[in-house]
Amino acid sequence: MQLSVGCEIGYEVFDGGATLIFNIEAMGGGRQHIIGEKLTITPFQDSDEKTAEETGNRYLRLTAAPGLLQIRYEAQIELDALHSQPGTINEVPVAKLPLETLPFLNPSRYCPSDQLARFANRQFGGIAPGFGRVTEICNWINAEVDYLFGTSDTTTTAADTFSMRAGVCRDFAHLGITFCRALGIPARFVSCYAWQLVPQDFHAVFEAYLGDRWYLFDATRMAALDGMVRIGCGRDAADTAFATIYGAVNPLPIRVWSDALDGDIRQEWTTDAVSVSRN
Amino acid sequence: MQLSVGCEIGYEVFDGGATLIFNIEAMGGGRQHIIGEKLTITPFQDSDEKTAEETGNRYLRLTAAPGLLQIRYEAQIELDALHSQPGTINEVPVAKLPLETLPFLNPSRYCPSDQLARFANRQFGGIAPGFGRVTEICNWINAEVDYLFGTSDTTTTAADTFSMRAGVCRDFAHLGITFCRALGIPARFVSCYAWQLVPQDFHAVFEAYLGDRWYLFDATRMAALDGMVRIGCGRDAADTAFATIYGAVNPLPIRVWSDALDGDIRQEWTTDAVSVSRN
Amino acid sequence: MQLSVGCEIGYEVFDGGATLIFNIEAMGGGRQHIIGEKLTITPFQDSDEKTAEETGNRYLRLTAAPGLLQIRYEAQIELDALHSQPGTINEVPVAKLPLETLPFLNPSRYCPSDQLARFANRQFGGIAPGFGRVTEICNWINAEVDYLFGTSDTTTTAADTFSMRAGVCRDFAHLGITFCRALGIPARFVSCYAWQLVPQDFHAVFEAYLGDRWYLFDATRMAALDGMVRIGCGRDAADTAFATIYGAVNPLPIRVWSDALDGDIRQEWTTDAVSVSRN
Amino acid sequence: MQLSVGCEIGYEVFDGGATLIFNIEAMGGGRQHIIGEKLTITPFQDSDEKTAEETGNRYLRLTAAPGLLQIRYEAQIELDALHSQPGTINEVPVAKLPLETLPFLNPSRYCPSDQLARFANRQFGGIAPGFGRVTEICNWINAEVDYLFGTSDTTTTAADTFSMRAGVCRDFAHLGITFCRALGIPARFVSCYAWQLVPQDFHAVFEAYLGDRWYLFDATRMAALDGMVRIGCGRDAADTAFATIYGAVNPLPIRVWSDALDGDIRQEWTTDAVSVSRN
Repeated sequence: MQLSVGCEIGYEVFDGGATLIFNIEAMGGGRQHIIGEKLTITPFQDSDEKTAEETGNRYLRLTAAPGLLQIRYEAQIELDALHSQPGTINEVPVAKLPLETLPFLNPSRYCPSDQLARFANRQFGGIAPGFGRVTEICNWINAEVDYLFGTSDTTTTAADTFSMRAGVCRDFAHLGITFCRALGIPARFVSCYAWQLVPQDFHAVFEAYLGDRWYLFDATRMAALDGMVRIGCGRDAADTAFATIYGAVNPLPIRVWSDALDGDIRQEWTTDAVSVSRN
Repeated sequence: MQLSVGCEIGYEVFDGGATLIFNIEAMGGGRQHIIGEKLTITPFQDSDEKTAEETGNRYLRLTAAPGLLQIRYEAQIELDALHSQPGTINEVPVAKLPLETLPFLNPSRYCPSDQLARFANRQFGGIAPGFGRVTEICNWINAEVDYLFGTSDTTTTAADTFSMRAGVCRDFAHLGITFCRALGIPARFVSCYAWQLVPQDFHAVFEAYLGDRWYLFDATRMAALDGMVRIGCGRDAADTAFATIYGAVNPLPIRVWSDALDGDIRQEWTTDAVSVSRN
Repeated sequence: MQLSVGCEIGYEVFDGGATLIFNIEAMGGGRQHIIGEKLTITPFQDSDEKTAEETGNRYLRLTAAPGLLQIRYEAQIELDALHSQPGTINEVPVAKLPLETLPFLNPSRYCPSDQLARFANRQFGGIAPGFGRVTEICNWINAEVDYLFGTSDTTTTAADTFSMRAGVCRDFAHLGITFCRALGIPARFVSCYAWQLVPQDFHAVFEAYLGDRWYLFDATRMAALDGMVRIGCGRDAADTAFATIYGAVNPLPIRVWSDALDGDIRQEWTTDAVSVSRN
Repeated sequence: MQLSVGCEIGYEVFDGGATLIFNIEAMGGGRQHIIGEKLTITPFQDSDEKTAEETGNRYLRLTAAPGLLQIRYEAQIELDALHSQPGTINEVPVAKLPLETLPFLNPSRYCPSDQLARFANRQFGGIAPGFGRVTEICNWINAEVDYLFGTSDTTTTAADTFSMRAGVCRDFAHLGITFCRALGIPARFVSCYAWQLVPQDFHAVFEAYLGDRWYLFDATRMAALDGMVRIGCGRDAADTAFATIYGAVNPLPIRVWSDALDGDIRQEWTTDAVSVSRN
């Protein structure tokens, strides 16, 4: 399907200026094709842009003078999501995992898989390994955690969410990642534009490494997996902030959008196995 | 039933001496009668002893000179535990709770009932209020938490135990208290001598305020409720340390015992409602 | 000095009603005399009121029907604060502390004195014991922690505040209490009306037990110690909430005031030793 | 200088077998040359070995049958450490940092730089940027944190260490990394063989990115920086475990050694700037 996605972000930069690193551009490669895109920085200024080799994350770095700074990104994306039969997708024993997936078994800032290991094994250890087990993890999170704004903040870990039983999309993703890692399944955090997400905002989901690729999972079930345009991926939210800011600024309201450009309109969350990742 | 209980505690007190506050003596009053008791402090030294009015906890305070200090306490206790029918015991609405039980609704050092409130209400909120609900809490803890030495320490809270799913008697008690408070049931921590506990040691259980009195609960189910000799009670383990020490000492191995003196030998953990408390 | 203090608190009580326990009335006794006071509950309804023996906290409990509930409290208070010379006030060795002060040496929900014990002893252990040492603790907090709204919430402990180095009055009080307890000085939390506090709100300070009484300390230094009208005291903020609510309500904006009624106007924070407590 | 380093690690592997991933081999490249090395696995079995491209970490993965498993690694290493003048080494503004260093600015499992940011900036923000500032961070840690076994465990974060003021080498490294990241200096965790370390064990230090390379720092000051043979580097200890084990095993005592093979014997910790890293 084709999607038109984008965002507008603005800051009032205070005296002394600021260096900002953005990760808002859609990833290319894999089954996510960038048909066209446009980035506008107002006022115009020098910036450098790089793509991280391992992840495909695209970083835009600029040093802004005091005053108003506005960034507008828009892109037209063709998603050729791979749909697979869940029942055919297995977990990979640690003995056979590709080396580059191993770091995604380690605990990270927001995903302390060491702390929740006993629970994960008690609750999910008896389920047949494979795509279905990760789906069960999502089912559990969806049933046991309330989606509520204002209950978590930027210091909230998956262990906190597990205790508090409330959170938003990033917390849901962190908890899913944490359980997967505790079970020996590499899992990573993905930020994205999400078609049909209401209200529109940057969304957070996760990928688990199963079979021979990374599959998308969204424990919030607030948007269709095959309508997600991947922006950044990493260990957890610490790696995929849409903006990292060094200097004093006042953030202005942001606007995010994601619209379908063709008739391929799904209306429900799907339990299909969906993969878009290039690596 | 009659029990012979006691303990031997020793310290090597270093230069500078130490002030020690012990809470090892059996409480009197209520349905726990002290038939006889004997306290030996070696070497002999002045001490003061007081009973806290609200709780009945007995504190022995002494200032020890450098050298070896040994405390031996032994007592003969008659327990006339009140056994009630669980089905007849109700929870008390907050609007009718005695004022002096209200502090036992507040979160404390090891029982952050605020953090686990949402879970407690999701898991236990739908169960009919009363003794049976607290029993369900104990069932849940017993089923979901592993009794394992070495998994917790003196900084471990009930939120930690909830995440880690492992702990010892004090952790089980803290978790039970936390869930009760989150549901509006006053609950407090009780240290005790526990007949049939293997291996013998100071034990930790909890009391919930139901109907018109405090009832004992032990989520570990490692000893009979009507064979427990209460020593200290308070908000949580922070209030009921068997020894609080100011100064540098080296603790020696402790010995604790609890033996039945008559034929009233129960061999199993009971689901009866058991109350011994004087207040 | 004479003060006119009070508050207006309101709730929209939802279907099902709610039980509310308020602790907003000024304590009597000690050097805080209630000249007159008036409590208005709208709509009028039955309530019970009790004073906790150990603390003097006054609790107002009522069960509200659905609809609007408004509470207005106003009082005229004569404060005859005891001013002592700081240099004459000593710490009390644990061996000599009154039994009833011992619970205030224990760690509590927001004051994990066990976790900060090493720091407290490194930083303040070398200072001469006495009132001056607690003043040094306040100096340190005032210098090292930023007073900032929005950096802490109701789950924030003194260990969090110590790491984050920001908080509000309750966090400042919790940190002061934590350091005192770690040094063997009983300390407790006090909620109060605070004359000259800007903006007017319920304030939080702490008391340390020194010499033969409880002395007030305010690490925020935002109001005069001898213009504070004590409302509640306890282990920490968990014990002194101005309102504890069981049931679903929507809180309305609150209003708090504290005005001097005579000419005894101090304008600066004082380093005098000030005591008002009755116990 | 030339060093002979190595280790012996053993496990009793239980029924079901285990997959083990070791990271015990010295890195090659940069100024650390492997003259010779020998790896013995007893009983002999298939294993695969790979070097992570970004870090140079060498992973040995094997699937062990039940029974005794022993690994012995020994290597002869030539260290040609680059010694630079501390005064000439500057920090790199975020605007100019190489892209691949940016992940080392993010908070990680054991290095929650977001939580200690305010303190880091209060304490070290006023110090002139550069190698000297990171040295000041090490000085502070060395002065303010006690090196004590038994005070931390595998769940201890730098925020815990900051509060508790005690820890071991990994905790010292985590705290140093955390402060650096909070100040905008990329920092990473390094596990190593450390000549002169007493008692001999795997050691943990950290590297900060300054000028155009990674420099070693050791806040414990327990071994010479130019006698450290790098084994693994990553975000924190979560990335550099010497053994990651999937399956049930009983670890046997390990032995680690590090001996100088030539006369270039330094006897003191140095404040020189030392770099060995290949990237």
